[in-house]
This record gives sequence, C-alpha cells and structure tokens, in this order.
Amino acid sequence: MSQSTPPSNQFDKKAQAWSARFSEPVSDLVKRYTASVDFDKRLARFDIEGSLAHAEMLQSVGVLSADDLAAIRDGMQTILAEIDAGSFEWLLDLEDVHLNIEKRLVELVGDAGKRLHTGRSRNDQVATDVRLWLRAEIDIILGLLRELRHALATLAKTHATTIMPGFTHLQVAQPVTFGHHLLAYAEMFARDAERLADCRRRVNRLPLGAAALAGTSFPIDRERVARTLGFDGVAQNSLDAVSDRDFAIEFCAAGALVMVHVSRLSEELVLWMSPRVGFIDLADRFCTGSSIMPQKKNPDVPELARGKTGRVNGHLMALLTLMKGQPLAYNKDNQEDKEGLFDTADTVRDTLRIFADMVGGIHVKAEAMREAALQGFATATDLADYLVKKGVPFRDAHEVVAHAVRECVERGCDLADLTAEELRGFHAQIGDDVHSVLTLEGSVAARAHVGGTAPARVREQAERVLAETAGA
Amino acid sequence: MSQSTPPSNQFDKKAQAWSARFSEPVSDLVKRYTASVDFDKRLARFDIEGSLAHAEMLQSVGVLSADDLAAIRDGMQTILAEIDAGSFEWLLDLEDVHLNIEKRLVELVGDAGKRLHTGRSRNDQVATDVRLWLRAEIDIILGLLRELRHALATLAKTHATTIMPGFTHLQVAQPVTFGHHLLAYAEMFARDAERLADCRRRVNRLPLGAAALAGTSFPIDRERVARTLGFDGVAQNSLDAVSDRDFAIEFCAAGALVMVHVSRLSEELVLWMSPRVGFIDLADRFCTGSSIMPQKKNPDVPELARGKTGRVNGHLMALLTLMKGQPLAYNKDNQEDKEGLFDTADTVRDTLRIFADMVGGIHVKAEAMREAALQGFATATDLADYLVKKGVPFRDAHEVVAHAVRECVERGCDLADLTAEELRGFHAQIGDDVHSVLTLEGSVAARAHVGGTAPARVREQAERVLAETAGA
Amino acid sequence: MSQSTPPSNQFDKKAQAWSARFSEPVSDLVKRYTASVDFDKRLARFDIEGSLAHAEMLQSVGVLSADDLAAIRDGMQTILAEIDAGSFEWLLDLEDVHLNIEKRLVELVGDAGKRLHTGRSRNDQVATDVRLWLRAEIDIILGLLRELRHALATLAKTHATTIMPGFTHLQVAQPVTFGHHLLAYAEMFARDAERLADCRRRVNRLPLGAAALAGTSFPIDRERVARTLGFDGVAQNSLDAVSDRDFAIEFCAAGALVMVHVSRLSEELVLWMSPRVGFIDLADRFCTGSSIMPQKKNPDVPELARGKTGRVNGHLMALLTLMKGQPLAYNKDNQEDKEGLFDTADTVRDTLRIFADMVGGIHVKAEAMREAALQGFATATDLADYLVKKGVPFRDAHEVVAHAVRECVERGCDLADLTAEELRGFHAQIGDDVHSVLTLEGSVAARAHVGGTAPARVREQAERVLAETAGA
Amino acid sequence: MSQSTPPSNQFDKKAQAWSARFSEPVSDLVKRYTASVDFDKRLARFDIEGSLAHAEMLQSVGVLSADDLAAIRDGMQTILAEIDAGSFEWLLDLEDVHLNIEKRLVELVGDAGKRLHTGRSRNDQVATDVRLWLRAEIDIILGLLRELRHALATLAKTHATTIMPGFTHLQVAQPVTFGHHLLAYAEMFARDAERLADCRRRVNRLPLGAAALAGTSFPIDRERVARTLGFDGVAQNSLDAVSDRDFAIEFCAAGALVMVHVSRLSEELVLWMSPRVGFIDLADRFCTGSSIMPQKKNPDVPELARGKTGRVNGHLMALLTLMKGQPLAYNKDNQEDKEGLFDTADTVRDTLRIFADMVGGIHVKAEAMREAALQGFATATDLADYLVKKGVPFRDAHEVVAHAVRECVERGCDLADLTAEELRGFHAQIGDDVHSVLTLEGSVAARAHVGGTAPARVREQAERVLAETAGA
Repeated sequence: MSQSTPPSNQFDKKAQAWSARFSEPVSDLVKRYTASVDFDKRLARFDIEGSLAHAEMLQSVGVLSADDLAAIRDGMQTILAEIDAGSFEWLLDLEDVHLNIEKRLVELVGDAGKRLHTGRSRNDQVATDVRLWLRAEIDIILGLLRELRHALATLAKTHATTIMPGFTHLQVAQPVTFGHHLLAYAEMFARDAERLADCRRRVNRLPLGAAALAGTSFPIDRERVARTLGFDGVAQNSLDAVSDRDFAIEFCAAGALVMVHVSRLSEELVLWMSPRVGFIDLADRFCTGSSIMPQKKNPDVPELARGKTGRVNGHLMALLTLMKGQPLAYNKDNQEDKEGLFDTADTVRDTLRIFADMVGGIHVKAEAMREAALQGFATATDLADYLVKKGVPFRDAHEVVAHAVRECVERGCDLADLTAEELRGFHAQIGDDVHSVLTLEGSVAARAHVGGTAPARVREQAERVLAETAGA
Repeated sequence: MSQSTPPSNQFDKKAQAWSARFSEPVSDLVKRYTASVDFDKRLARFDIEGSLAHAEMLQSVGVLSADDLAAIRDGMQTILAEIDAGSFEWLLDLEDVHLNIEKRLVELVGDAGKRLHTGRSRNDQVATDVRLWLRAEIDIILGLLRELRHALATLAKTHATTIMPGFTHLQVAQPVTFGHHLLAYAEMFARDAERLADCRRRVNRLPLGAAALAGTSFPIDRERVARTLGFDGVAQNSLDAVSDRDFAIEFCAAGALVMVHVSRLSEELVLWMSPRVGFIDLADRFCTGSSIMPQKKNPDVPELARGKTGRVNGHLMALLTLMKGQPLAYNKDNQEDKEGLFDTADTVRDTLRIFADMVGGIHVKAEAMREAALQGFATATDLADYLVKKGVPFRDAHEVVAHAVRECVERGCDLADLTAEELRGFHAQIGDDVHSVLTLEGSVAARAHVGGTAPARVREQAERVLAETAGA
Repeated sequence: MSQSTPPSNQFDKKAQAWSARFSEPVSDLVKRYTASVDFDKRLARFDIEGSLAHAEMLQSVGVLSADDLAAIRDGMQTILAEIDAGSFEWLLDLEDVHLNIEKRLVELVGDAGKRLHTGRSRNDQVATDVRLWLRAEIDIILGLLRELRHALATLAKTHATTIMPGFTHLQVAQPVTFGHHLLAYAEMFARDAERLADCRRRVNRLPLGAAALAGTSFPIDRERVARTLGFDGVAQNSLDAVSDRDFAIEFCAAGALVMVHVSRLSEELVLWMSPRVGFIDLADRFCTGSSIMPQKKNPDVPELARGKTGRVNGHLMALLTLMKGQPLAYNKDNQEDKEGLFDTADTVRDTLRIFADMVGGIHVKAEAMREAALQGFATATDLADYLVKKGVPFRDAHEVVAHAVRECVERGCDLADLTAEELRGFHAQIGDDVHSVLTLEGSVAARAHVGGTAPARVREQAERVLAETAGA
Repeated sequence: MSQSTPPSNQFDKKAQAWSARFSEPVSDLVKRYTASVDFDKRLARFDIEGSLAHAEMLQSVGVLSADDLAAIRDGMQTILAEIDAGSFEWLLDLEDVHLNIEKRLVELVGDAGKRLHTGRSRNDQVATDVRLWLRAEIDIILGLLRELRHALATLAKTHATTIMPGFTHLQVAQPVTFGHHLLAYAEMFARDAERLADCRRRVNRLPLGAAALAGTSFPIDRERVARTLGFDGVAQNSLDAVSDRDFAIEFCAAGALVMVHVSRLSEELVLWMSPRVGFIDLADRFCTGSSIMPQKKNPDVPELARGKTGRVNGHLMALLTLMKGQPLAYNKDNQEDKEGLFDTADTVRDTLRIFADMVGGIHVKAEAMREAALQGFATATDLADYLVKKGVPFRDAHEVVAHAVRECVERGCDLADLTAEELRGFHAQIGDDVHSVLTLEGSVAARAHVGGTAPARVREQAERVLAETAGA
C-alpha cells in the first residue's frame, strides 16, 4: 500500500471518507438510520458561518495560507448561493450537513477545501452549529414574547375596568377585572423571557477548538473565533465541550414552561368561548368548522396549542433520557438531540406568533362577564373584611359570613339582596353602610395595593408592560 | 339567501367547506399551524379502505344507491393509483387527508362523492384510519420481533458453551454462558410481542359509526363495517369512540419498553466492543469512522438506538400530556396524536430491522470472555454452596468464603490458586475435591434447573425460541 | 484466619453480613442513602410468604431437613405476629426488608434460619416479593374499577333520557343523554381493567430460582414454588429474571391511563359544577371551603385527582429512565423501582375508591342541561340528515344548513324558531314535517344503532355494564 | 340563625373552619386524600416566619394592634419550641400546616390569633412558604456544588499528568489526562450552579398580599414584607402570584440536569471499577456486598445515584403535567406540587453530599489507565496532524493514516511499532522524527490551548476551580 492511492475521491461516498479502515460498506438501511442530513441541513448557514470563522483563525495563526482562506471563502459563497437557490444536492451517502458541505467545497476549491477540517472535528463543529442556530432562535422567540406581552397589555388596558368573576377551583371567588386577568399572562411570559435570556448566556459559549475531545495540536486561537462569531466566551474543557447538551435541555425546559403558560391561556379561551360561559368570541380566522355539523365554529388554534404542550414536554423528556448515563466524551446517541430541539423551537415560535395575533382578535362580551360575577357571592370576602374593620377577628368574621351565605343559598338570593337589617341578624356590627362593600365596583376598587385588581393598578401595570415592550 | 347558491365549489378551498358560517378566512400561518395533511397523508390507503367499507355498508342498508357505490369505487381506484404514482395533488388548503381525498372524489364522480360522508364525521373517520394503520404496523413489528428473537437464539445456540463472566453491578458475579446471556434478550423481546398482541386487541375495535360524537340518524350497520375491515368488534359508546386515544398511548408504552430493551442490549454491545473489554466485534457495516481520528471504528448503530429510547419515551409522555384533562368528546388537541405515534412506529420498526440483521454480524471473541471470567472470583458462590452441601449453614458458609476471598485479594491470586490445604484453613469441611467446584465449567454446568445457565439448558431454550420463531 | 471466627453475630449489623470482604464501614449518610427498609418493609408479608414456599421446596428436594423447615415456619409465624403487632424492630443497619427478617429469624431459630438463604439471592427474592405484592394490588384495583363502573352505570341508567348538550371543542355539537356521557367513562375504565388483567399475566411469573443471576447449584424445583405461590409459570432465563422490571413499568403505564381517564372525568365534574355551567352539584363531603372566602364550596377531590395524573406520569417516566441503558444483570439502580411503583398503586387505588363513592354523590341538574342543549344549534346535523334523506347529497345539505345557521345567528334565534316556510327558503326540499327532526328528543332517539345515544341504547348499555359488574 | 352561634370552636376540626356552609363532613378517606399536613409540615418554620412578617406589617399599617402582634409573636415562639421538641400535635383533621399552626395559635393567644389571617389567604401563604423553603434549599445545594467541584479539582490537580485513554463511542480516541477528564464534570456542576442561581432570582419574589387571588381590601404594605423576609421583589399580579408554580418546575429542571451529570459520572465510575477496565477503586464505605456471592464489592452509591436520575426526571414531568391546562387562578391540583419538589431537593442534596465525599475516596490505578491508552491507536490523529504540518491537506493525511492503521490491525501491532521507514511507505513526507508525535506524553502536551488536555492547562484549570470554590 503506498501514497499513490489517490485520496481525491474520498468524498464520493461518505463511507469512503474513512474507507481505508473499513472492509464493507454500510447497508442502505443503516445509512438511512444513521444519517442526519435530512434534518441537520437546516444548520447549513451556521455551519458555513462557523467554518469561515475557523478558517479565518487558522490563517491568522499561520496554519492556512491567505490563498487557501480566499478560496474557502469563495467556495462557501457559491455553496450558500446554491443552498439559497435550492440547487445544492444533499446526499444521504454523505451522512450529515458537515460532510455534504465539505465535499462540495473540495469539489469547488480542491486542496484548500481539504485543509479546512484542520484542527477541528465534527464533534466540536456540530456543537458550534447548533449553538449558533439556537442563539438565533432564542432571539426570535424573545421578540415574539415581547409582541405577545404587548398584545396582552393593549387589551388589558382597554379592559382595566371590565369586571369578570375571578375563579378559584372554577368557582366564583372574588370579582376581578378582565385586564387584571390578562396581565397575569403577561407576567408569565415575562418570566419566560427572563429564563430564555439566562439560557442564552449558556448557549453562547464556543465549543470549537475542542476538536474530537481533547483539543488539537495546532496553535489555535479560540478567543478569536469566539469574537468573530459573537460568542460570550469559550468552553473551558474540551471533553465537556463536545459532549455537553445542557443548553439544549435547558432551552427545552424553558420552552415547556412557555407551552404550559400557553396551555393555561388556551384552556381559558376555549372555556370562555363555550356558549354556557360566553365571555368572549375568537375571530373567525382562528377557528374552523365541522365536516358534519354545519353550525360549528371551533376554537381550533387554542386547542391545538394546548395539545402541543405535550410534544414539547415529550422533547424535554427525550433529551433528558438521551443524556442519562452517557459516558464521556461524544457518543453517537447525541445525534438524537436535534429533531426534538428543532421541533421545540418551531412549536414555540409558531405558537407565539399566532397567539400574539390572536389576542388582538378576542371579542370581549363584557355584559356576560359582569352577569357571571353577580353569581356566586363574589363579595362575601368583602363582607368579612368589613366586619374585621369593625373589630371582629377575621376567623370569626369568616364564619359569620358563611352563615349569611348559607341563608342566601337556601333563599336563592344574593348577599346584596338581604337588607342591612337582615344582615345585622348575623352580626350586630353590620351597619347601614354595608351594601357599599357588596358591589362589584367597590370590591375591585378596594384591592388597590401593588398587584391588586383595582382598575387604577391594572392600568398602571398595563402601561408598564406596554413601555417594556414598546416597539414590539 | 336561497338554494340557488351553487354549493358545488365548496371544496376549492377547505375553508369553504363550511364557508357559509364564517366571515373571514384563516391566515396562512393558522392554515399551516392547524393543517395535518403533511403528516396524515400517510393514512391515505387506510382512509380509502375505510371509506369503501363505509360506502358498501351505506348501500347495503339502502342509504346509497348501487350506482353511487360503483362510482365511489371507481373514483377511489383512480385516487389510489394517483397516490401510488405520486401524481395526487395534496393541498394544505384542504387541511387533512380526508378532505383532500373527498374533494378529489367529488371532482371525479360528482354527487356520489358528496354522498360518501353521509352518516359519518371526520372524528370517527380519522380514528378508524389510525387504527387500521396501527394494526398493520403492529403486525410488521411482531414479525420483526420474531426475526430478532430468531437471530438471538441462533447465535445463542452456537454459544451455548461459551463462558463469559456474568456481571452484577458490572462486577464479576458468576460465570454464565454467552448463549444464556443472549437468551435473556430473547425473553424480553418475547414479552414485547405479548404486550403488542394484547394492545392489538384494543386497537382492533371499530369507532366508525360514532359520527361526530353521538352516532348518526341513518340506519347504519356497524358490525358489517367491522367485518369488512377485519375489526374484532365495535366501540360501544360513540362519545368514547371519537375521543379515545388509549390505543395510541398503549402502543407507545409498549414501544418504549421495546426501546428500553434495545437500549440495554446496545449498552452491552458498546461496552463489549470497547477495547478494554473486547468481548465482541461488530460487523463493519454497522459502524462508522471519525472525521478526524483515522483509526476509529465506532459502534454507531447501537449508540444511536440507545439514544432513540429517549424519543420514544418522549412521544409516550407527549401523548399522556395531550390527553390529560381533556373534556369529552373530540377536541382539536387530538390532532397532535399522530406525529408522535408515527415516529414511534417508525423508530421501533427500523431499529428492530437493523438489530435483527446486526445480531448476525456479532463476532464473538470467546477467549477474551473466558479470560475475563477468570478475574473476580466468579466461583466463590460455588465454594459456599460446596460447604452448604457439607452441612454448613449458608450464612456461615458465605462468611467463610468471604474470608478466603479477602486472603486471595491480599495475595493477588484466585481461589483456585489456593491448595485444598490452604482452603481448609478457612473451614475444616473443605475436602480435597474442592477444586472441581471452582472451575468455570463446573460452575455453569451445576446450574441445570429451568432458567439456569447450564449449557444443556441454554441449548434447550435456544431450540425452544427457534421453534417459536420458525419461518422468521 | 480460621473457621473459629464466630460467624454467628454476622447480622448484628448489615455491613457485617459481608464484613470479611470490607475494610471500612459505610458512613451513616451512605447507609441512609442506600437503605430501602423504610419503604420496602411493606413487602414483609410477601417476603415471608415467598420464603416459606422456598423453604418448603428446599425440604422437598432434600436440601433442608424437616426439622429446619418446621423451625423456619415457627419463626416466621412469630415474626409475622410481631409485624402485625407493630413490635418488630426494623433496623436501617440491616438495609432492607429481607435482611431484617432473616436476621430476626436467625435470632429466633438459629442455624435453620441461616439455611433459608440456600439456593437464592436477594436479587430473585426481591423480584418475587414485588410481584406477589403487585399481583395483590392489581386484584384490588380490578375490584375498584368494577365498583366505579357499577356506580357509573347505575347513574347512567337513571339518566338514560336526561338530555344534555354533547360538546366537541366545548362547543355545542349535538344533543346526547347524560347517561350516554357517563357510559363513555365506563368504557374507558373497562379498557383499564382489560389492560391490568393482561399486565397481571406478565406479573405472575416466578423469578425465584434465578438466584443472583445464573441460577443455583442446588437441585431446586421452581415449578413447585410457582404452584405454592400461585404463579402462572416460571421465568425462563435467570439473567432476565433478576433484572426484569417490565412488569412494573407496564403497571405504571396502565395506571397512567387510569389517571388520564380520571383526569378527563374530573375536568368535566369541575366544569359542570362551575356556576356558569351548573349541570351538577357534588356532595359536600367531596368538597372543601376557603380559608378566606366564606361562600366557597370547591370540588377539591376531582381537582386533586386531576393533579395526581401528573405524579403517575412522573413515576412511569422515572421507571423508564431508570431501566434505560442498564447492562445485565442486576444493578443497584433497580432499588429505585419501588417507591414510584408503590405510590402509583396507592394513588390509583385511593382515587378509584373515592370516585366510586363520589359518582353516587353527583346531584344532576337536568333542567340546566336541557337548557344548555337548546343553545348552539345542536340539531343542525339533523336538518342536514333530513335533506339527505330527501335525496340531497350530504355535502350540499351541509352547506345549505350552514346558510340557515348563519341566518339564525344574525337574527339571534334558533333553527326551530324559523317556520317551515322560512327554512324552505334555504332548500326547496324542506317540508312541513321539518320541525320534528329539530327537537332534542327526536335527535337523540334517531341515533339508535349500537353505540348511539338513543335512550333505548343507553339503557341497554347501562344494563350490560351493571351485569358485568354485578356484585361490585 | 344568629350571631350567638359560638364561632370559637371552629378549629376543633378543620371541616368546621367553614362548617356553616357545609351540610355533611368529609369522609375519612377524603380527609386523608385531600390533606397535605403529612408532607407540608416540613414548611412549618417558614410558615411561621412568613406569618410573623405578615403580622408585623399589619401592625405597621394599623390593622393589628401592638398587643396583638406581641401575642402572636409569643404564641409563635411557643409553637416553634413545641415543633422543635416534637411535642406539637399535627392533626389530619386540620388538613395542612397552615391551619394546624393557626389553630394552635388561637388556642394559645385567642383573638389575636384569629386576627392573623386578615388580608391573606392560604393561597398566597403556601406560595410564600414554599418559596422561602426552596430558597434555603437552593443555598444549601449551591454550597454542595461548590464542595463537589472543590473535590473534583483537588483530585484533578493531583492527576494533571496521569494519562488515560480519552474515549468517544467507548472506543479509544486520543490520550487525555485523568485530571482533564475530572474537570469536565467540574464544568458541568458549575453550569448547574449558574442555573440554580438564576432560578433563585425567580424563586425570591413575594406572592404574599395576593390573598385568595385578587389582593385584599386592607391597606397592606407588600414591599415591607418583602424586605423583612429577604425577597428581592414582589409579584406584580395577584392572579399570577397564587397560581404560579414556574419556580418549582424550573428548580426541578435544574435538578434534573444536576442528576444527568451525576448519572454520567456514575456510569463512568461503575465502568472504571469493573475489573476488565480497572481504572479506579472506590473506597469501601461507598460499596456494599452480596447476600450470596461472598467475593462481591459493588459500587452501590454511583449505581443508586444513576437510578435516582429517573425519579427527578419523573418529578419534573409530574409538575409539567400538573400545570398543563389549568385555568386561573388557584386550583386544588396545585397541592400536588409539593411532594415531587421536596423529593427533588432531598435527592439532589443527599446525592451531592455523598459525591463530594466519594470523589475523595477514588483510588486511581494510573498504570491501568496508561496501559489502556496504549491500546487503540490513540495517537493516530497526531500522525495526521504531523503530515498536515508537512503540507499535506488534512483530508488526505487522514486517509493516509487510516491505511497505516489498517496495516497495523492486520499485523496486530501499534503505529509506534512501525519503523519510520515503514511509515514512510504510506507517505513520503514522513520523516525520522515521526515517533515523537506518537507518544502519549507528546500527544497530550501538544493540546495546549485553552480547554485542551495539556497538563499545564489542566493544572491551570484545576487552580481556577479551586480558587472559585475556596472555603468549600
């Protein structure tokens, strides 16, 4: 065996990239089973960006000539154009996005292309690609969270004084304003944004330079690559750098929480649109009909979004299972990180985009909300508080009101329907002014501290969120 | 508004299938978000099969004319041919596989096509399609489980006397035969087959006839449809029939156990192929190399399979989350049942197919196995049993041997390296015949009861599995 | 070192059971971390049952003397009495239920006790214990499922003609009877029972005899033990027998489905009890009040049950994660199988017991149900079916009715409020008899096929379930 | 009904806290099913801390008298003492920790105690308690992560030059130092600490003042309470405040990642301790023996820790399932948040504490590591790099070396066993100096960039971690 063996055709088929070591080719089924190019080709843009930064650094430290760098840049420009044009030929035989691009580069620019992989491995390359891609996705999602919060705050401001029943256990608890209710979701999505920003810091560290697992014998300058690619820092341990998928799991966990919040809002939208509740109507463009029942208008979008919570939970669980018990450093298991991660980002992104639009399409039926707030003794707590302010200990006041409520249940009337005299029958401290605390308006206005449902506070909070999300 | 409104164009766009009720079309994003045709078109064949059975029944009870039935049959034949030829045009606007096919049918055969949906709904239609599809998948998987068990038993028979260390806690425990070890997996996959057969019984019940949720006012004959389609019975409650996804969850749970077993076998294959262990080599066609390290031959297939355990666990969790807390009857959430279910079947199927092939490509290094069995005092239990047979209570015998082992550890030798005289120092009952129980062959041969590792038993079990899987 | 080392005190502390091999004791934290006695002591009864069957078999094959067997029986009887009386002293130092009981047995009966562990290991012993325990739990749960189905069918029979709106997407779809709705749950719980019965078959196989992993050198008779303990068969491979936890996972998966069904019913109970819906009231004994709002009566039990779905899903995921990638045979990881399994059984059991009682405590507000069914054009499908019966293709009929519904929405009236003349404006085939199909009673009665909501069918199905669950 | 009804005995049984509203008591099973006191009593200390801050604020705004505050403080001091002494009587009838403590307070100090619950609800109270408790747990865990990283860095520093095979796919890839390998875990645990610190910020916000869901009509000063309790801020929306469990889920997700890292380290420890690998020995105090095999010493602690990954994954999934689709605001489902959260904290805490100790108990077998690094052509990449430095494009160099490796495999020798002359047969550029790059020491020393495995770098990184964790 001699050097005369022409190595130039090594990329014709991926198997031949390491053909000398192998005595039989993989079967077609194995090829399909192990290939990732079908799904990882969406990383192409980031793969090229990373390769160019790597090449530029190699040239800066003298490993690559200026001519080689120029050739690589030209070649990559061509490849990018081919990908954009849809003319790039993706080959399953070449297994993944990295070998497909590298092979094409070698076709286009020859030896310069063969020098590109110096001082790196697919192990650190793919980790870099995924981080670049995820960073971009997080930025998009952060923008969409802003848009959604803006839409919620806009509607909340309009409905700062619209009274609805506040529910606990789906039982009428106390009156709240619809604006206050909407702003609860603005808070949830604000936390989601915080979490994703925290996650982004851990995504934004450069693994490149870890090579296969131990680093490389070339005098690479990892900080330079980090600067070029906009990373905040470099991974401090090469073994960890190639095997770490924490950032993907953390992103999926943050995404699962986004979807939990979406599922809660969806549950309420579906419920509010049910004819017995009838608090809102959703714009037709978010609903669909039935193939059999001509009268149906179904809130498909929130239902589907609620269902999609499951898939993101599933992806999170898949990634946690994937990493459990893996020895260092890179194992092929890790290839399974991508589809779940990609789908999580797609799901969260599409869902937020639609919700940001859909919130503006909520038609509020204020009269039905108000009517519902009048059922269920929503101001019973106010009566107890009234007694406390007269000096009755809260626990005693609570029980006094419970007796009054029981009486009303038996009579089939509301607390406000009892006269002051009748109410006084339950406690001597009840005065003629009692009915003022039993109104819905009185009840909400009284909750005027930070975080309370008083219209003034709701308007204030809506303004704060609008200011925070200005430009969304 | 009058009947003169031409209803014939109602399928041009799906939205128009119920257009009269809606005042604005769905946006493109919503259309994409809510459409399922991209993934549910794989049900096309089963959708048509179900429609034909439904039409045939409608005709038999007098709801459809013989001419209409004939037209529907002709139309469906054309559609099937178009799908097979790849010329069928799938439209996102028509949302799902059902409306795409129905619309084409109406184009081809006119009013007969418009009559097909009589007495059914997409709610019961999709449930029927998925069950037909899943039944077919289960049958394929049952066949692959047979193949895999056959391959395992074939190799096991060859290695009924090949001794390896049996491990607990990855510490050498007692000698076993490699055949015995392989047959442990044959048992696991046999249970998987049992579970899938049980699951199949619950899959194989007909929901069709539940219509949207309450049944239909047409005099349908559900048992007839069940017979035509090979179902074992009909769902007894229409509300349950359209909302039940138990069968999908049960299948995913069974699939998750298949993958757990695959992951355990994979873990061992990877471990056994690691150079320090060196028990086996995998055929090159199941391995790949490295883009940077020229010497590498990596067990990619078992690693990837181990990783895929995660995705199936994830799908199971996704479906459980999906169904949690859903009120009756059908909700759009349920559309999310398909992708996870499809991917579970694909993953299990592909993995089993590859493993059935890969087991035959295991090259056994019997010498390394034997050598490893000689490390770690694998026959210490046999020495304790020897003492028990001499009348020493087991607990005392156990402690006596522990002392002997400790001595050997200190000396750096094996139990068999001690003379009978030296061994007698630990217990007076130890005779000159003691070394016969300390050999690997003696140890395995002694475990000759049902389920034990004695070569005779292993051969017997391998024969049993081969017989059960004959023809695989 | 000589045999004079007194082995009799080896159980004083568990570490001393293998003390000869170890040079330092485990720390208190490690002891607590690795001990299982706190939770596995609930297996005590089954541990003793298994030990007695093992001893009896050992005697029958001549390994144990009749005197020893008698002593063991006496000792175990004492121990059982001590456990029942609460006077048995469980020691963390002895790690698990097995060593605690064995140590006490040795105290009580001396050498006979030390002979009990002959031919077995804790690996096969614990597997046997857990299977015996789980078999008993499944039988209890099967009984509770019967009770719950009985309660559902009893209420369903009473409400075979009570009309409520059938919902899809929480929108009014078609009228159904409340009895029909309840029976949907009876179907779900019937499938749960089927699944648990299938699972029981796989639980009910004897692992004992696998010893540590390879079987034993004693001439054991495993079929005899299986018969004594009521097992259907013996595990065919010792390595599989000690490491198999499929049965626990399968049980948790079946339990997760039970809880999914419970969560769906709970969601509906909570919704139905919400004042805007007002379909039912739950008996006070399943509700609690509020510490602050005196008027509240909250459906705590269904809410809590809905929440407990999560914990069972979690246990399933925990066990799947646990087993993923474990090499053969037994590893300490497996000790983690118990708490999740125990809690799954407890949760399912307690929940079913409460629900079987709670269903009887549902107070039905038939008037509110009927009123709700009159909202939302529940009989629009009947109008379309009416046209089909007049010869109009279903797709055209569907669109005609959609136009009529739109007109009604605009006018703020119901379909039945239009005159036959007005309805004829939408299609000439509409006759003067049209109003008969627009009534709620007409609609439900028309769905008279198997599985349909017609009162006659509902009564029939309720009777079937009552017969199936007679004696529950 | 009159005020003369004595409310003073309202706490005798919890049901009577709202008894006036209810006509029947809950059954014993329901009581047990819905009570949380068995597990939430661990919050007692934090419940009291929160109550005292609440009372102090009430007094500061004039709602409570100075005398009442003093009485409450005295009463709480007594209660705390009783709890510490184990003499506090926890009653299931009183449902939860809050009512148990409040009832005792009323017993001790009368009306002042009944005034404590003014302006709050159990909904915001429990949310406050859990956050206070979790904040303390996070601080403990952060300390343990520091200890563990300190232990890892200490051992890493000692083994900065100890060479072992770096594995990918469990195949020998390139030589690394054992110190480098250990520091990969120090990086993982550093990210865990970052994540927990981020999570802590979101835990540390005050929900108190949200009352039941809408705020309260009393003029409360939430910022004052926040300051007293050391919270960073107050929750801005009362509906969100009582229903938010994001912080619990985020903590469990962070905990799941800790356990994933633990599981990876555990997998390696178990593997390294397996006799065929033999890289390390674990101190006896972390191992246990076998009840049947006298020679066994099993790495129980890492195995069990690996298994416990499952339970934390499970708790995460349980909480995500729990919150999915819950409408606002508080529902009883939320009571299910605690046990999983508590067990996650316990598991993470105990595991880290043991691991911090166990790392110091790792006995390194450097000779076995070195020997293993000599198997498997670990320096093949160095030979390729050597050629690149001579001007050969990397892709060609890679293939040249693959040929050389194949030759060695066939001959059964190592690359270093070939003469320079023989190696030159594969490529003319190979010079007589080639063997210097084929040594293990040369290979590791060459990887001298940031994150590389060169001993100098490893020492540097170990020092950095030791400095960061000083005082741990």
